[in-house]
Amino acid sequence: VTAEQRGPVEQFGIADIRRAADRIAPYVRETPVLTSRALDAEVGARLFVKAESLQVTGSFKIRGALNKVLGIDPSTLGDGIIAYSAGNHAAAVAAAGTLVGCPTVVVVPRTAPRAKVENCRSWGAEVVFYDPESETRDEVTDAIVAERPMTFVAPFDDYDVMAGAGTTGLELAEQLQATGVTPDAVVVSCSGGGLASGVLVAMEHHFPGIEKYIVEPHGYDKMARSLAAGEVRANPAVRTTVLDGISGPVPGARPLRVLTELGVSALTVDDEQALRAVAATYQHLRFVAEPAGAAALAAVGVQEHGFAGRDVALVCSGGNVDPAVYTAALQVSSRPAGDAAG
Amino acid sequence: VTAEQRGPVEQFGIADIRRAADRIAPYVRETPVLTSRALDAEVGARLFVKAESLQVTGSFKIRGALNKVLGIDPSTLGDGIIAYSAGNHAAAVAAAGTLVGCPTVVVVPRTAPRAKVENCRSWGAEVVFYDPESETRDEVTDAIVAERPMTFVAPFDDYDVMAGAGTTGLELAEQLQATGVTPDAVVVSCSGGGLASGVLVAMEHHFPGIEKYIVEPHGYDKMARSLAAGEVRANPAVRTTVLDGISGPVPGARPLRVLTELGVSALTVDDEQALRAVAATYQHLRFVAEPAGAAALAAVGVQEHGFAGRDVALVCSGGNVDPAVYTAALQVSSRPAGDAAG
Repeated sequence: VTAEQRGPVEQFGIADIRRAADRIAPYVRETPVLTSRALDAEVGARLFVKAESLQVTGSFKIRGALNKVLGIDPSTLGDGIIAYSAGNHAAAVAAAGTLVGCPTVVVVPRTAPRAKVENCRSWGAEVVFYDPESETRDEVTDAIVAERPMTFVAPFDDYDVMAGAGTTGLELAEQLQATGVTPDAVVVSCSGGGLASGVLVAMEHHFPGIEKYIVEPHGYDKMARSLAAGEVRANPAVRTTVLDGISGPVPGARPLRVLTELGVSALTVDDEQALRAVAATYQHLRFVAEPAGAAALAAVGVQEHGFAGRDVALVCSGGNVDPAVYTAALQVSSRPAGDAAG
Repeated sequence: VTAEQRGPVEQFGIADIRRAADRIAPYVRETPVLTSRALDAEVGARLFVKAESLQVTGSFKIRGALNKVLGIDPSTLGDGIIAYSAGNHAAAVAAAGTLVGCPTVVVVPRTAPRAKVENCRSWGAEVVFYDPESETRDEVTDAIVAERPMTFVAPFDDYDVMAGAGTTGLELAEQLQATGVTPDAVVVSCSGGGLASGVLVAMEHHFPGIEKYIVEPHGYDKMARSLAAGEVRANPAVRTTVLDGISGPVPGARPLRVLTELGVSALTVDDEQALRAVAATYQHLRFVAEPAGAAALAAVGVQEHGFAGRDVALVCSGGNVDPAVYTAALQVSSRPAGDAAG
């Protein structure tokens, strides 16, 4: 690996993402890059949408989990893996454990949606509940690991997980190049920053100088504030938002380092904008996006963000969404913009 | 072309489908074949779902329309093309005309959903409305063609259209072979029969002896009755059904001939079964299916149809569906089976 291949941070670059892509290839899907003339007309830009909702387990998370798990020494792997999450990371780790063939424990708050719990169980993972009112997920996880020496799979602040997530961007770049497209900008949702850092490193490598954007929920822009402060800053207490997938409390220190070196612009979207983007994927691209998954599309649709007339690549990160929220999105979209009650 | 390549009917076989695939390749997407462990567990079979909802214009129809249009002599093509439809065929012809660069007229009942009309317009087609209470689509179309010598693009009863639709099955077969899968059965929805005849010819060619099924709406099984009668039989008057995409009045004579020679089994599904299948694609595969598009999946889920334990390939033919119907599907799926009001 040459210095040039190393990328913006000593520990993380395109070579890591390429190695991850080779490693996880037997287990994941190459998700399509979708386009729509009607959607382009609506947004006023030419969009290339990477549909990670169609990935195994319904989000990009399987890529990072698999790359981590496949890097574990076989003798250690036999002891199994463990993760905590109420969302897509839990299902991804459950799937990764099953696909690789090791014991898997997922620590889940008792309040997690039943559908997400069933998703983990359907992959054969052992689900351990905890009461978020009286215990922390760290305490519960530590207690299990003290008895069983399982390897912890972090949701984002881990170079193997970031490289796995980054294969989304590597695929996107290669798919665009294969069709002769050179995008002006790339837009990706951001919470802990695993997806954003990996995708933007891959896209910058293939399209040097491309404009790079991350998208966070309005009012919960922890990565934007961390980038401005030069150190990790937590969100204020998170109220209820349909953008639950990207409303976690703290960004990862490693993703922050990578995004700082890369130089990225930060945007925010509100719940209504995200729900409208969910409806747009339904109508024009015909795949299911969860609100957090559609955040990048939502940001591109905001006039003030200045994407008009540009060629924009973006990642739709996942599609695991409660039917009630989805129904609300289809209803919001039939109202004029700005007319939402909440 | 040898006799062997010719397939079951002198005028139509795998060679036609292969030629269509080459012809339309620059304009269409290779749609993914999706799988889900949780869906397989629910249905009790191993399913391989060709997601044609993700095709350009949101259904397989663009394949047939394009193959027809690309076969028109360039001097004739300049005069343009014309089609009638209230659904996916209209958008497909509008798109095909734009992609190939010829004038396009679509004759649409005044009662057609606005979304479908806008879909045609967004592709640049000229939309001509007619009043289904006082005129027929044939009269309106004939009157236009009398003044402007445009080429009529039939929705299904045309070997070029059937070969184009059949590329869905050719792709499916090649995708399955690439992953080492030999399905026991293939299931496809059927109305006029363009898709079913094309797909089943391609699948029989690649997997000789495979069990071949067509699926129609319960009570509107015109192709099943035509197969039994040995000649085209019309549906009884069609009541309102969410399976509007496959509830047309008459099957095609050419598709009937092909399906007769092939030897296929015919199944039916009711509205509730179709809506449940729509919800299953939402939850487990995360793409949008319209009820007619999900009919094949619905049929595989019916216990009495005997797919338990088998490897089943199926086509999900389209994903253009009114939000109200989609919302109803997500609600039906949360009720126990058999508990639907309608």
